[in-house]
Amino acid sequence: MEQHASPPNGKAKEESNVVPLCRAKPSPSFINLQASSPPATFLNIQNTKLPSGFQDVHVMVFVGFGFLMAFLQRYGFSSLGFTFLLAAFALQWSTLVQGFLHSMHRGHIHVGVESMINADFCAGAVLISFGAVLGKTGPAQLLLMALLETVLFGINEFVLLSLLGVKDAGGSMTIHTFGAYFGLVLSRVLYRPQLEKSKHLQGSVYHSDLFAMIGTIFLWIFWPSFNSAPTTLGDGQHRTALNTYYSLTASTLGTFALSALVGEHGRLDMVHIQNAALAGGVVVGTAGEMMLTPFGALAAGFLAGTVSTLGYKFFTPILEAKFKVQDTCGVHNLHGMPGVLGALLGVLVAGLATHEAYGEGLDSVFPLVAAGQRTTTSQAMHQLFGLFVTLTFASVGGGLGGLLLRLPFLGSPPDPQCYEDQVYWEVPGEHEDEAQGPLRAEEPDTRA
Amino acid sequence: MEQHASPPNGKAKEESNVVPLCRAKPSPSFINLQASSPPATFLNIQNTKLPSGFQDVHVMVFVGFGFLMAFLQRYGFSSLGFTFLLAAFALQWSTLVQGFLHSMHRGHIHVGVESMINADFCAGAVLISFGAVLGKTGPAQLLLMALLETVLFGINEFVLLSLLGVKDAGGSMTIHTFGAYFGLVLSRVLYRPQLEKSKHLQGSVYHSDLFAMIGTIFLWIFWPSFNSAPTTLGDGQHRTALNTYYSLTASTLGTFALSALVGEHGRLDMVHIQNAALAGGVVVGTAGEMMLTPFGALAAGFLAGTVSTLGYKFFTPILEAKFKVQDTCGVHNLHGMPGVLGALLGVLVAGLATHEAYGEGLDSVFPLVAAGQRTTTSQAMHQLFGLFVTLTFASVGGGLGGLLLRLPFLGSPPDPQCYEDQVYWEVPGEHEDEAQGPLRAEEPDTRA
Amino acid sequence: MEQHASPPNGKAKEESNVVPLCRAKPSPSFINLQASSPPATFLNIQNTKLPSGFQDVHVMVFVGFGFLMAFLQRYGFSSLGFTFLLAAFALQWSTLVQGFLHSMHRGHIHVGVESMINADFCAGAVLISFGAVLGKTGPAQLLLMALLETVLFGINEFVLLSLLGVKDAGGSMTIHTFGAYFGLVLSRVLYRPQLEKSKHLQGSVYHSDLFAMIGTIFLWIFWPSFNSAPTTLGDGQHRTALNTYYSLTASTLGTFALSALVGEHGRLDMVHIQNAALAGGVVVGTAGEMMLTPFGALAAGFLAGTVSTLGYKFFTPILEAKFKVQDTCGVHNLHGMPGVLGALLGVLVAGLATHEAYGEGLDSVFPLVAAGQRTTTSQAMHQLFGLFVTLTFASVGGGLGGLLLRLPFLGSPPDPQCYEDQVYWEVPGEHEDEAQGPLRAEEPDTRA
Repeated sequence: MEQHASPPNGKAKEESNVVPLCRAKPSPSFINLQASSPPATFLNIQNTKLPSGFQDVHVMVFVGFGFLMAFLQRYGFSSLGFTFLLAAFALQWSTLVQGFLHSMHRGHIHVGVESMINADFCAGAVLISFGAVLGKTGPAQLLLMALLETVLFGINEFVLLSLLGVKDAGGSMTIHTFGAYFGLVLSRVLYRPQLEKSKHLQGSVYHSDLFAMIGTIFLWIFWPSFNSAPTTLGDGQHRTALNTYYSLTASTLGTFALSALVGEHGRLDMVHIQNAALAGGVVVGTAGEMMLTPFGALAAGFLAGTVSTLGYKFFTPILEAKFKVQDTCGVHNLHGMPGVLGALLGVLVAGLATHEAYGEGLDSVFPLVAAGQRTTTSQAMHQLFGLFVTLTFASVGGGLGGLLLRLPFLGSPPDPQCYEDQVYWEVPGEHEDEAQGPLRAEEPDTRA
Repeated sequence: MEQHASPPNGKAKEESNVVPLCRAKPSPSFINLQASSPPATFLNIQNTKLPSGFQDVHVMVFVGFGFLMAFLQRYGFSSLGFTFLLAAFALQWSTLVQGFLHSMHRGHIHVGVESMINADFCAGAVLISFGAVLGKTGPAQLLLMALLETVLFGINEFVLLSLLGVKDAGGSMTIHTFGAYFGLVLSRVLYRPQLEKSKHLQGSVYHSDLFAMIGTIFLWIFWPSFNSAPTTLGDGQHRTALNTYYSLTASTLGTFALSALVGEHGRLDMVHIQNAALAGGVVVGTAGEMMLTPFGALAAGFLAGTVSTLGYKFFTPILEAKFKVQDTCGVHNLHGMPGVLGALLGVLVAGLATHEAYGEGLDSVFPLVAAGQRTTTSQAMHQLFGLFVTLTFASVGGGLGGLLLRLPFLGSPPDPQCYEDQVYWEVPGEHEDEAQGPLRAEEPDTRA
Repeated sequence: MEQHASPPNGKAKEESNVVPLCRAKPSPSFINLQASSPPATFLNIQNTKLPSGFQDVHVMVFVGFGFLMAFLQRYGFSSLGFTFLLAAFALQWSTLVQGFLHSMHRGHIHVGVESMINADFCAGAVLISFGAVLGKTGPAQLLLMALLETVLFGINEFVLLSLLGVKDAGGSMTIHTFGAYFGLVLSRVLYRPQLEKSKHLQGSVYHSDLFAMIGTIFLWIFWPSFNSAPTTLGDGQHRTALNTYYSLTASTLGTFALSALVGEHGRLDMVHIQNAALAGGVVVGTAGEMMLTPFGALAAGFLAGTVSTLGYKFFTPILEAKFKVQDTCGVHNLHGMPGVLGALLGVLVAGLATHEAYGEGLDSVFPLVAAGQRTTTSQAMHQLFGLFVTLTFASVGGGLGGLLLRLPFLGSPPDPQCYEDQVYWEVPGEHEDEAQGPLRAEEPDTRA
């Protein structure tokens, strides 16, 4: 077992996890990102090659979220472009924020695969919130939202993971619940009573739904990597990946079944397939790392797919009519409810943990329980408290963000031009004969 | 060489390949999936991180097959959606079926990366069969097909790999030949004499062909991972990946050359490029693991691309006219013929194997030959017998499946509504002004 | 530390990096590709699994370049199809050419992951040149171009890396600068004064821009793998990936800012977002492996994004009007200028290298400096000289290539049919009702 301590290629461990981006003299400025010694926790990077997990998460954030939101008929440029802009901004800003909170060592921020994955997670939360206000906000507003949300995301995550000892590998709480309710409260504050003026632009067309499926499928494929990216290598990572995989297959079947059941003439609805089928990934974001068992994962996934589909069918209209929350992408159905369910599932599975079931793995999943500092019941209570903390941060932050975004100089689009790329982009015609030349701009747009 | 037995991080080997999804008391129910001790054969999972091979195969199944079949102008929702549904179902069901056949240990099924890759392989076979009946079957029919095919796939694979000692890493026989002829015989039983009523929907439009290219390209890229996913790590895996890579480059060149040669005015046909260019991956599914040599791989790939292109041009019409097999995606050209060719190539290369050529690697490629239990000629005969077994299982299974699918309550689409999403999906208009409201279908298309 | 010399699974090292594709008797023919003993330098392949880096580079070449060029309204088949054809051809041809130059051992070429990545790099350069002549050349011309360019690419790379000891991991010089100026000079020689006859086809339509974004996003995501694929495993690879990642986030922000700044009414231009946002990956192709520091990477990326955007806005029209270079994809802005900037950045960072900053890593980044055979100033001068060599090879090669491509029997498209798929492809209609056109229905439908 001595071999266990030294990595395969025999380098000393304190070297192996570190990326010497700059070994010049450290200065006290926190802005001088530097990698000198590894943070003790998180990903134990194999030093021999770049983990593919990072790239998989990257694909989910940029391809997955970007194309999933490209379902609107005249808002594809903005969906893809602003996803790109917001994520690129959030990656940078969150590296600083999270570095400041987590990885400061003698005045320096440590960067590496771990910081890249964490930054992608933060970008994911920002993009979930973007989904709630999609089409109704301009890029300046969105950047301001990302600026604020990244800070709150970092603080919330720090409180949960570092102060409360909550486990949340795939982010049911820190990413999905936080991102969804931040965005929903923000959308509530930005409520537009006259939004029906752009109602004709709120739907999809045939090929925009196909583009959105690119997002769905890549998200579905790589979700096991997403949930398992920050877990302990080895058993923990495999278990998380498997649980996520089973949960996703079950949520997909549940979504197809329910969609046909509630659809007119038994017809399937693309909105459900594109979104609710993914709820299985959200719901095991907390418990996937734990001994959920394949059947637990299948049951959780089926429940999440069902709830999410019903949410799209019945709850989204109520949300707008009664609660004045206009949720463009239905993030409440895909991230909000499944995220809260996932947090509660984490409470349950943590409460049921036993030394027998986890064996040596208990130390990596529930280190405080393994060390005897907590009972499993106490761990479960901490998990539950983590959910409330998250909901509080998200709601207060979203409210605050909404007020900021109402500042008049931020360039919010007028009601009839919501969901319309032409406000922010040079847009070519849809067909060949429209696409030519100088007359394009003068032509009356008969579609708007 | 003692080191060889213990994995890099020093964990005991019986621990390292196992994913303790549930260490609670094992119950005898086979439904209680559990990972406790590793199956002796198959993938030797490195326990330090999730192999990227699994995700690559996953991409092929969901993105590759899904978008490849999205070439039809009005059937993109069904191609992508039913691929999603069938694959998610097959993954679950095949984990049980294959687990029951392969990985039962004291009443439990062992799951892990190996079972996930095997399940993806089975889903691949189901989707190949789907390609033969695409547009002419409803979701209930397709699920029934998947239910039956998954069982037969598992049994056929078990007979070949475990009972006959046949080698078929990339599945020229078990996946491509089996999936293609199962689907073709099934399509024969479901023959529709009046299918020309929906002839106007059987072609592609410009942008649907671009969507299909997403499938082609991702399949092409990740095929080396597909063929090498279940091979022995190290030399065997690298050799398989390289052979597949060379074969694919050659089939691509062969396809372009033949397509221009047989095209009117030397024009290329997108159908050939989308499909036949991939035949190089199919044809080395058996022999890729063996000492095929790069030139063997290049020659095999070129031949496969050529045969497949000629099949699309000349044989598919004959197949419908003479044999009453309506093969929507041309799976006979992409999977059927190249699969059989690949099986025969495997017979040849196995028969030519020598101890000198393989050295120590003989043990992992042909363990029975290395152990002295078989001559290479005997191995070659077993390979050939495996092909006949596969063709028998596929034909009988496909015939049986076809009879089952003709059950009247399964909701088969009427002839004029084949290749039409609207039978099963809520479909938005193709253009912006069509996207609103109930009158959509009646509106005249003023642009065309 | 004894463990360090032997790879994890205990195989002898001289075996471990080798792929025994064919161990039959070596023949002296260079065409008999064989892997018998590893090349001493380059990638130290882990023998336990196929590096995901190879697949990531593969995705960039086929998905990235292919879809990025699919922005034209009526040239998607050609953009994707010819990318596919050229890359498949270049992979084969470049394996031979580079093998002949780099990896000959007793008359044999050694192949493996290293050769696959190098071949993909060469294919990347060919596709960059393709971008400069996109829409104005036929497949025979393009294959001839690839034939010539692959040879020159190999020679130029050999001169730089092997003879001059220049460092260029991500290919700012060998890939981007070479590919861009080769293509631009070639495009100059093929100048078409009457190209405005097909001006109506030179733009995009709405959904073709969305297809192009598939290319952009996959390029963006996997660029860290691209730049770090050939670097030393461990620290060097992580550093390269991180520098690339920071540079890309900065070039994305810079591009959005500049695009809005120079756009009419502050509107963003999709051309800038699709292309200039990627300039950050190009600009750190040389220096990414070095101690650039995150801030260096951010600054370089921002500069590259800015310069590239300004190039698209102001310089491309000048390039056509004054220099008679018709640069369809703007490769001068995305690859040319950022490539040269990247080469100069490499000169600077190499000149500033110190033993203190690199520590033990100096040996892998600047082996000649570490061995005391060169000062850092001398290394910097060699880097600069490498840029001039590259520009010379590219210009002379491009000029020569252009003359060859003017041979009349190569099937160049006439001016009014540039940017038009129908010259080389069977093209279906854009809309459903066109898809059954009078001529098409009579043709044998090869698919069904």
